[in-house]
Amino acid sequence: MVSKKNDREENIGLRYRKSDFSKWYNEIIAKSELADLRYNAKGFLVHRPWSVMAMKEMYRLYEAELERNGHLPVWFPALIPESNFKKEADHIEGFAPELFWITRTGDKALTDRLALRPTSETAMYNMYSKWVRSWRDLPLKLYQSCQVWRCDTKATRPFIRGREFFWIEAHDVFGTRKGAEDQVKEDMKTTEQVMHKEFGIPFMFVQRPEWDKFPGAVHTYAADTIMPDGKVLQQPSTHLLGHNFAKSFNIKYRDKKGNEKLGWQTCYGPAIWRMMASVIAQHGDDKGLIFPFKIAPAQVIVVPIGKSSAVKKKCKDVRDGLVEACIRTIIDDSDKRPGWKFNQWEMRGVPIRIEIGPEEAKTGKLTLVRRDTAKKDKISEKCLVKMIEKLGNDITKSLVKRADKFFNENIRTAKSMEELGVLLKLGGMIRANFCSVESNGEPCADEIQDKYHAMIRGTRADKKEKPTGKCIVCGKRANYVVYVGKQY
Amino acid sequence: MVSKKNDREENIGLRYRKSDFSKWYNEIIAKSELADLRYNAKGFLVHRPWSVMAMKEMYRLYEAELERNGHLPVWFPALIPESNFKKEADHIEGFAPELFWITRTGDKALTDRLALRPTSETAMYNMYSKWVRSWRDLPLKLYQSCQVWRCDTKATRPFIRGREFFWIEAHDVFGTRKGAEDQVKEDMKTTEQVMHKEFGIPFMFVQRPEWDKFPGAVHTYAADTIMPDGKVLQQPSTHLLGHNFAKSFNIKYRDKKGNEKLGWQTCYGPAIWRMMASVIAQHGDDKGLIFPFKIAPAQVIVVPIGKSSAVKKKCKDVRDGLVEACIRTIIDDSDKRPGWKFNQWEMRGVPIRIEIGPEEAKTGKLTLVRRDTAKKDKISEKCLVKMIEKLGNDITKSLVKRADKFFNENIRTAKSMEELGVLLKLGGMIRANFCSVESNGEPCADEIQDKYHAMIRGTRADKKEKPTGKCIVCGKRANYVVYVGKQY
Repeated sequence: MVSKKNDREENIGLRYRKSDFSKWYNEIIAKSELADLRYNAKGFLVHRPWSVMAMKEMYRLYEAELERNGHLPVWFPALIPESNFKKEADHIEGFAPELFWITRTGDKALTDRLALRPTSETAMYNMYSKWVRSWRDLPLKLYQSCQVWRCDTKATRPFIRGREFFWIEAHDVFGTRKGAEDQVKEDMKTTEQVMHKEFGIPFMFVQRPEWDKFPGAVHTYAADTIMPDGKVLQQPSTHLLGHNFAKSFNIKYRDKKGNEKLGWQTCYGPAIWRMMASVIAQHGDDKGLIFPFKIAPAQVIVVPIGKSSAVKKKCKDVRDGLVEACIRTIIDDSDKRPGWKFNQWEMRGVPIRIEIGPEEAKTGKLTLVRRDTAKKDKISEKCLVKMIEKLGNDITKSLVKRADKFFNENIRTAKSMEELGVLLKLGGMIRANFCSVESNGEPCADEIQDKYHAMIRGTRADKKEKPTGKCIVCGKRANYVVYVGKQY
Repeated sequence: MVSKKNDREENIGLRYRKSDFSKWYNEIIAKSELADLRYNAKGFLVHRPWSVMAMKEMYRLYEAELERNGHLPVWFPALIPESNFKKEADHIEGFAPELFWITRTGDKALTDRLALRPTSETAMYNMYSKWVRSWRDLPLKLYQSCQVWRCDTKATRPFIRGREFFWIEAHDVFGTRKGAEDQVKEDMKTTEQVMHKEFGIPFMFVQRPEWDKFPGAVHTYAADTIMPDGKVLQQPSTHLLGHNFAKSFNIKYRDKKGNEKLGWQTCYGPAIWRMMASVIAQHGDDKGLIFPFKIAPAQVIVVPIGKSSAVKKKCKDVRDGLVEACIRTIIDDSDKRPGWKFNQWEMRGVPIRIEIGPEEAKTGKLTLVRRDTAKKDKISEKCLVKMIEKLGNDITKSLVKRADKFFNENIRTAKSMEELGVLLKLGGMIRANFCSVESNGEPCADEIQDKYHAMIRGTRADKKEKPTGKCIVCGKRANYVVYVGKQY
């Protein structure tokens, strides 16, 4: 029997292994206090400090990259008049079933209903038509970090599917189709820079088939990633909107010759909230979370070994030095045993642990432990900041590498429907020859959906892949290579 | 007649002087593109980049100070079930008339109505009752940066009164009344540290009279500031909630001896949105905005004089060097005249301008101009970063000093009702002897309201002031010294 130091010490360690993914995922969210599912409105999540601190850093990195690329921040109202929605027919048709409607204020009924934004096209583009007048106003590149609300009726899952989620939406207007198309490419690059390199989430941008586009888009490109259980999770999507909204919302400009022209639009939606799901799922292990260094709520945990004043002082000095260097550092000076603390902060995913006992306090040689590899190092206090930065960098790189390996191993090719069935059981994305991603291909997509509960995700966006045979469903000529996966 | 360089150059300079405050305020908000009032839902504001960039910095400074004092960030749902509101009787009574109600999703009616949060007590405290179990869980100090929605039926004014505004709310639980009372003091100090020292907004914390407390509070303390037109604007308030919500929401803990006790609570609401109003109003002048250095959307504007490649290169080098040092810097390389640019960026309130012409490009001696004093300085490029930091600091200090002077000059003492009437015409806060701030004083407050449209703001919170005569309204014994002002 484990000896009890106090009433709480036993409450540590995970009951489920990561291989039992769904249970592991729910348990780690509760135990590491990322979120609480007990809020008394269905589908809404309470976000606790440990996830919020990480998501704030995620927002910061994402916003910085968008601003580097010429986007500026705006804050639009969360409430959108019903009349705005009605302007773009496909858009309202797509979102209508999921809208939250405000119909009363105080005890009075509203004559014009207001919807909580499910996305902000119809709030923003009304104003864009006032702001865009001349070629001088273009490109217009704005983003907002905000929440959106969609009354998803499917089963909700924390950070994956819910009725309120936290994202960024960028909405851009250009003078030419080329400008808009280049923006779509820039959005893909932004996703690579931040979501892949910093958050460690590998993905493939696929162009969605016609029947699965964003309501109102000409083309939709979505970054699909693969979860540990083999299901595919959609991360940011970027959309070429063409003139569709510009026509409905009257977004026009005068070119240099004075001619009136319609704007070309794009929008891009990186959902920080859902990226958190991938961060938890991708990097975690049987011991708990592992945060990439730059987004860790705490980057370093200092654990005192023993209670001497020399140890206490050294802990404080080390922490102060790291905080000075903008490294998020906390000391666990609670009355728990060191072993309990090790487990606790490993579970919470802090990338680096520093252990300081009487020996370390005296010599200034500190013991550093990496969360991802459990590797120990003795480091002289003098080069601590540099070492932590280097180690942090190494940890992120190695998480990226591991995630990439998993991702690449889970893309397979099926030559027939039977093979598709077998490979889908292994999970991931399955490459296959397919007749058409235009609307005439939908019957074949439906057959895959009916037989295997899997979806045609679309065609690879970064390079054109040539099909070499027949459509694996109907046996007619294959015009596309598509990717198929089971959806989250 | 002014010569026109291009079609837009004439559109510069303000039509109204600051002495014509209300018109000046609306004009500067539109002209410097802080916000757009043309959104098609009443009482909602569209925030443009120039205000959002400033408010993001304001949030950052405020959050950092709250975290330094042990608060951690959370994100709670924006939607609150009706049943939660009903738990605290005073609270629902206070907020009911202003609530936005969600009654439908898609085409289905909701059985339980959801309110958009007007403030988050009733969302958060339900969870607090699950999180607070033992003395070890205390103090619990959490904050969230979010929007709130109140269907204010009075006339809305940008950044002052609207149906959606941006704030921070901190909600804390303590084991003792002393703990909660100390928190109220800490909140006042936080206000001083950030709102006064960084944003340059002077204030006086007053304890609100009984009839004007936050719904559900034991005591309410509010930071009142004075606007240029002499009206009083309430900035953050902090509330001692005592056991009121703890009883309704069952927030109990076991103390070290194992006894069950009710928590003592406080909440604090710094509204970044409204602080923006004070920043605009307090520091601006006839030429436009003046931003305190740390919150300026751009801290330095570089204006090239001439178009030589040497000038262009020097501008870029200077900008790159400043950006490297984390100073927000932009170059105005548009095709406008330098004079137009000077006016433009003065109107937008950029604290420091650097002018770079052929002479400056050659010698590396740069011309720096302060927005607040228009004072010019020649600075060697080598010590630029240091100089900008020093100058930025000086500008903020001098804005604080000027604002303090205005604030202190606008606190006056009235010895009689007649004098109160005269002094209220001068504006600001009027000190007066008053019978009672308990409920029995309300008739006298009503008389002041009826006669002068002015409010009893309350008694000074930082020191006890002794009344020396009779109540200026009823002539009975004065038990309090109160401050009276016309409200925004």
